Amino acid sequence: MFMIMDKPIMNIVQDKYEQRSQRPATLARKTELAARLIDLADAAIDAAGVQELRARALAEAAGCSVGAIYSVFPDLDELILTVNGRTLDRIDAALAAAVLGCTTPMQQMERLASAYLNYAVDHRGHWSALFQHRMIGERPLPGWYATRLDLAFRHIEGPLQVLRPDLDEASRVQLARTVFSAVHGVVELGLSGKALSGTPETIGDQVQILVSAIAHGLAWKNRELK
Amino acid sequence: MFMIMDKPIMNIVQDKYEQRSQRPATLARKTELAARLIDLADAAIDAAGVQELRARALAEAAGCSVGAIYSVFPDLDELILTVNGRTLDRIDAALAAAVLGCTTPMQQMERLASAYLNYAVDHRGHWSALFQHRMIGERPLPGWYATRLDLAFRHIEGPLQVLRPDLDEASRVQLARTVFSAVHGVVELGLSGKALSGTPETIGDQVQILVSAIAHGLAWKNRELK
Repeated sequence: MFMIMDKPIMNIVQDKYEQRSQRPATLARKTELAARLIDLADAAIDAAGVQELRARALAEAAGCSVGAIYSVFPDLDELILTVNGRTLDRIDAALAAAVLGCTTPMQQMERLASAYLNYAVDHRGHWSALFQHRMIGERPLPGWYATRLDLAFRHIEGPLQVLRPDLDEASRVQLARTVFSAVHGVVELGLSGKALSGTPETIGDQVQILVSAIAHGLAWKNRELK
Repeated sequence: MFMIMDKPIMNIVQDKYEQRSQRPATLARKTELAARLIDLADAAIDAAGVQELRARALAEAAGCSVGAIYSVFPDLDELILTVNGRTLDRIDAALAAAVLGCTTPMQQMERLASAYLNYAVDHRGHWSALFQHRMIGERPLPGWYATRLDLAFRHIEGPLQVLRPDLDEASRVQLARTVFSAVHGVVELGLSGKALSGTPETIGDQVQILVSAIAHGLAWKNRELK
């Protein structure tokens, strides 16, 4: 599933070489190498975090030269971003599963926040790579990545539509990202011990208190508007 | 004011040398050097961020050898933490000024959040050093630093005491850190463009929507408990 959702690997290879002509056999070999490097980088980030990712170690694991990596990816940034795209898909799937069969907006928001915290706790390397990664030279995020972010955020828009039906779509989309950022702040400063110190259980309790307050505050605002 | 609040420089120098005896003239010279290095590191972090801080450049600016830095600080981590302590004092002062003469808890929370965002926007280097800095070998934060964090958080406890008078002190302290983390999440992901993209004004609007929802949600909870 994740492979299907990846930025098509053929495109990565073609993007890099769009100006040159390549023999089909070369293209097939490079496509296979790109897929292998993505899997290896994915596993390495999961195990040790993105800051430990090294081209030399990747090349060794893939059985290719360091130069060969740069024959299929313009730089490690592009490779990391592809792995981060998979992480967004996994979070998307976890959020979708969390609200299955859940109909009240309060409970949906609580479950979404809880699923997000659980993902961060269980997959620290993948999760933190989403935020530690910076594009070289502050390039804007590519469109395929932005689309995945939108997909992950749409889960939060569901309960917000019930709590604040008065909001237009643009405001609701913005509010979903704001609520996400707030929950993320508690998860991040909790897990890093920078503001909240404690176990995932303590952080989980605080996330629930926060989300409950936000949801009730939004519902109050809606009642006041009527 | 900040110099008075610093971990006394004499102590830093004495901590490092507590096992050895030093001549008073040597101690005075080292104390003066430590103060100079703190000022220089403070200015460098403000200008270019903590990740650009280099011992060699600091030594050059201070007119001393690189080795001399390590004769007054065990490592750059300790120096950065001292600068971060000053940053906490500045944020503490900005938060105190923001709620001067403001009596309603809703408005106090809105002004605190706004002052925090403004500090982050105006002093990006100092602000981000608080969160980018990691203690070498995950040493626990020293007591003098933890005390400053407590002092900065106490501003949020004021309005929370009015909104949720039912909470005991430990829960209120925890809630203050949770509300801070939520606001911080919106500020951080907003300024880094990772979830919210936009100007400080847009981020400011979202922070206000969040804080208003949290404050009203907490007030609702309090009414429900009665």
